[in-house]
Amino acid sequence: MKNEKWETVSSALRFVDDHLSVETEAVTTPARADAREWTVVHRKSAVVIAAMTVEGKFVLIRQERIPIRQTIWEMPAGQVDQLCGSGSFKDVALRELREETGYELAPGGEAIFLGDFFCSPGFTDEREFLFLLKPVRRSTAGQAHTQAEAIIDCREFSPDEITAMIAEGTIRDANTLSTWARLLARKLVRVG
Amino acid sequence: MKNEKWETVSSALRFVDDHLSVETEAVTTPARADAREWTVVHRKSAVVIAAMTVEGKFVLIRQERIPIRQTIWEMPAGQVDQLCGSGSFKDVALRELREETGYELAPGGEAIFLGDFFCSPGFTDEREFLFLLKPVRRSTAGQAHTQAEAIIDCREFSPDEITAMIAEGTIRDANTLSTWARLLARKLVRVG
Repeated sequence: MKNEKWETVSSALRFVDDHLSVETEAVTTPARADAREWTVVHRKSAVVIAAMTVEGKFVLIRQERIPIRQTIWEMPAGQVDQLCGSGSFKDVALRELREETGYELAPGGEAIFLGDFFCSPGFTDEREFLFLLKPVRRSTAGQAHTQAEAIIDCREFSPDEITAMIAEGTIRDANTLSTWARLLARKLVRVG
Repeated sequence: MKNEKWETVSSALRFVDDHLSVETEAVTTPARADAREWTVVHRKSAVVIAAMTVEGKFVLIRQERIPIRQTIWEMPAGQVDQLCGSGSFKDVALRELREETGYELAPGGEAIFLGDFFCSPGFTDEREFLFLLKPVRRSTAGQAHTQAEAIIDCREFSPDEITAMIAEGTIRDANTLSTWARLLARKLVRVG
């Protein structure tokens, strides 16, 4: 998908804090040699975790989300702060799973990379990397999420329950919906 | 999902332009009476259109996306500028379909509302409203997209082709993936 004709002619930093930065960029594209100005919100990448138990259920968390003033059921996920030499997106996925749900990959379990997606490519470069971890089991250590997170519940749901929650709109975040679409397309989960 | 305990104690505008605003908000939540500070990017809502032909194919556009420096296949979509008294999300969906693809709802066709989703509720309130329009047909008026858009191709894809594109990662935007998950969960499209 890369093309050498994507060239950043200029960029002006408009805002920055610990979580995001806003830049106005002038960019030439493969289709247009004259630079176009665009305001872009830069964010860290994230991992999203489809955590499947040995019974074929998925672990979801119920989380308070301040930007939308709602508490929603969703797959565990977390931002990727920095990848060290020995680290990887998979390691982040395993850590986030343990921290947010108290589950861990069972011995002999596998991590299947499901590719990535962009949450809103019209305005942000935020990119999500998706993993299926299976089978997972409750860890003896329990949850360890920080004060910054607001996880108020954690439960296992069958594929049919998740299908119903998607159909009725109870599941309404791009992470869970997009990961579910990838799982179905790759025939890694079967429903109804 | 609403709860009276979501209270905005204070908010400070950090950045604003025509496309987005950044605010640092202090908010009490149903689970926490002490206000938490959060940086939120406010954006307009958007509509996403699953446009199905009488043969059961879906109309996708190939669009240059500056924030991610990639050109991707995706469902047509557009921001909702303002809803007037006589307007509605459905009207916006019909207009965006025509502008971005040159297709229109065929006589006797229907618009089915598929609910909404949030593209990244950890940092933005951007919300997408999803519609299935069927059947659609090529309009005699053709496309009418503006200079601000960078649509370089438009084609019909069968559900099996879309499944393959999702599986291999060619379809990699939250709008198309989330809408597809909703269509499958509501059994409005059948694959393989």
